[in-house]
Amino acid sequence: MSGGAVELLEQIAHIGVDTERGGYTRPVFSAPELALRAWFIEQADRRGLDIDVDGNGIIWAWWDAPDTRRVDAIATGSHLDSVPGGGNFDGPLGIASALAAVDVLRERGVRPARPLVIAAFPEEEGSRFGIACLGTRLLAGLIDPQRVRELRDDGGVSFAEAARDAGLDPALIGPDPVRLAALAAFVELHVEQGRGLEDLGQPVALAGAIIAHGRWHVRIEGRGDHAGATRMADRQDPVVVAAETVRALRAHALVVDDARGTVGRIKVTPGGTNVIAASVDLWMDVRHRDEAAVRRIVDEVTAATERTATAEGCTIVVAEQSFSPTVAFDAALRERMLAVLPDAPVLDTGAGHDAGVLAGAIPTGMLFVRNPTGASHTPAEAARPEDVAAGVTALADVLESLLTR
Amino acid sequence: MSGGAVELLEQIAHIGVDTERGGYTRPVFSAPELALRAWFIEQADRRGLDIDVDGNGIIWAWWDAPDTRRVDAIATGSHLDSVPGGGNFDGPLGIASALAAVDVLRERGVRPARPLVIAAFPEEEGSRFGIACLGTRLLAGLIDPQRVRELRDDGGVSFAEAARDAGLDPALIGPDPVRLAALAAFVELHVEQGRGLEDLGQPVALAGAIIAHGRWHVRIEGRGDHAGATRMADRQDPVVVAAETVRALRAHALVVDDARGTVGRIKVTPGGTNVIAASVDLWMDVRHRDEAAVRRIVDEVTAATERTATAEGCTIVVAEQSFSPTVAFDAALRERMLAVLPDAPVLDTGAGHDAGVLAGAIPTGMLFVRNPTGASHTPAEAARPEDVAAGVTALADVLESLLTR
Repeated sequence: MSGGAVELLEQIAHIGVDTERGGYTRPVFSAPELALRAWFIEQADRRGLDIDVDGNGIIWAWWDAPDTRRVDAIATGSHLDSVPGGGNFDGPLGIASALAAVDVLRERGVRPARPLVIAAFPEEEGSRFGIACLGTRLLAGLIDPQRVRELRDDGGVSFAEAARDAGLDPALIGPDPVRLAALAAFVELHVEQGRGLEDLGQPVALAGAIIAHGRWHVRIEGRGDHAGATRMADRQDPVVVAAETVRALRAHALVVDDARGTVGRIKVTPGGTNVIAASVDLWMDVRHRDEAAVRRIVDEVTAATERTATAEGCTIVVAEQSFSPTVAFDAALRERMLAVLPDAPVLDTGAGHDAGVLAGAIPTGMLFVRNPTGASHTPAEAARPEDVAAGVTALADVLESLLTR
Repeated sequence: MSGGAVELLEQIAHIGVDTERGGYTRPVFSAPELALRAWFIEQADRRGLDIDVDGNGIIWAWWDAPDTRRVDAIATGSHLDSVPGGGNFDGPLGIASALAAVDVLRERGVRPARPLVIAAFPEEEGSRFGIACLGTRLLAGLIDPQRVRELRDDGGVSFAEAARDAGLDPALIGPDPVRLAALAAFVELHVEQGRGLEDLGQPVALAGAIIAHGRWHVRIEGRGDHAGATRMADRQDPVVVAAETVRALRAHALVVDDARGTVGRIKVTPGGTNVIAASVDLWMDVRHRDEAAVRRIVDEVTAATERTATAEGCTIVVAEQSFSPTVAFDAALRERMLAVLPDAPVLDTGAGHDAGVLAGAIPTGMLFVRNPTGASHTPAEAARPEDVAAGVTALADVLESLLTR
């Protein structure tokens, strides 16, 4: 039965295939993500779980123990949305493993003393509206609902419009302390996004910490002009400034041990081959275990960009879009998980997760499943069937321990 | 009546407005460009001109002198397509001025001894299918029609599909030597794309030469990965390589007197903020009066990009998309134009034009109208009403001279 998660993932392997980039593109509230949500609801329903979609679009599937109210529940789950051209494991593995773990617990004849709930959180990746873990940030009251309603995707569609099209009422998004208070703990299973387990020769790990992570939007304005008729000395070319931002971020992140700095998204306007650009928007993603190191890198890159912008006659505005401090997962919960999984190593991660957001409100832990390529946010992301099975077993063991004591 | 061109341009000022970039976006065979084509046909028809759309989608509007066949015709005209976020003058000014010049010639009672034809050429900018002056290149047999049919726009639509949707038969595109042989000369009026006339205090100039111009597509492949989980040392980030291409092109073009080098279009794939890119496509636009200087710059930038790509574990492919040698316009025709417009200065231009392509087949000349901002391929492009009127008068004077001798 532990093969169940592999089979569940195969059921959705045709949804949101990206023929241009490879892999999958499943932005929140897009047709593919809505198809995955429907699939999850159907699978939960087949297992007799009780479905409940909250005002933030989070899907909750409850396995209620007899004679309990919805308090002290143990939650698990993950997300269904993907980055552009991502893999089939980042997110869905946690959902499929949770469904499969319910099957395992029932086969084992486990009688839970409290409810179990599987959650699917919207916009974990932030790939559509720019802010990662948006569903859990709303749930936990960490972001202004009005700001969220007004967020726009690249096509100009607002979050409110997209949510309405997905059947939600955007007026209802926002903090939900009652729902959060019903949860005693959250354990998220996720494919590993690095080579830690592959290097250690282990199938499953526990999360130690999520390193601090921020996103900055850099807006560079110059003067659009003709690529042939404008002398080099007369130009105010924002692309030249953007190139310096990329160079400086790479250079500064390289010299700080274990820092990460990335520019993966650049928008040149108007974007014609024979046109000097009028403006460039780019986004910096910077991470380090030490929050001060993240801010130092951003300050240094901003200063270098300012210098080039001044020389080029351009202006820049650097705006923080999000900042997530280092998250150390709950130590007591990790000790309980280690008691069940004594061989599992404890690994830090450079990737953000809904579990990291929820860690500020309730005891939270994570399980990582080995990724033989170490690659993530690309079609090369992988997980072996036997490791997926080991992950389901580990999750079932942890849940059994938490549900029955 | 010389104000007629200003009024004609006002008639189309609402077509293809780009609310995001500002200015106009009128790619060839898009709804706005097709609306402009219909407007041109209607205006030509109102003037009793005889419309004829050829296999390449070039619209010809004939004012036939009595008792002449369609040989030794004098042609004028320009294009209706624009770059993304361009102005209302680049292209349409030449069409509107040609229509207005016909009105002027008739008011003057000019009796042409040979036909006059106004031409509107498709895809002058190359902003949709990547190759500038595509209509005249096809007409003159300078490009393989099968290659053109297979060109694709950013949305994956082929030239053949777009042409068919525009009511053309893509099987009919290609060289048309008979039609070309019917033309004795071509004179294109165009808004100036630099500050030459503004600096000289003159309203109208004649073109001396078009400097050599090439476009290169640079494809950089790296390895997509997670922006948080991947150590800096483990990355193969194509954005870092692209930044070096931008830097090197700027540096090498700056040190060669009067060279121009531009990167105005960059596509990062997959393009997520928290994703190390898998690949980058960018386009280099390089120009200089000396063709060898253009090739030297491209070679030097390619070498610099190769070095960074090797260090980063990426691969690059640099492909020439088009190369237009320096075009010296017909000296005898320019002398005749100077006899009519003795005060007009002669200016070289860094911008390509259909007139430059046709110069290889027939005697060709150009008139430039002052642009007070000097800006081009941007909404800031401008032309004062009195200068537009001066341009119409100059064009009418030149056409009268060519039509009546």
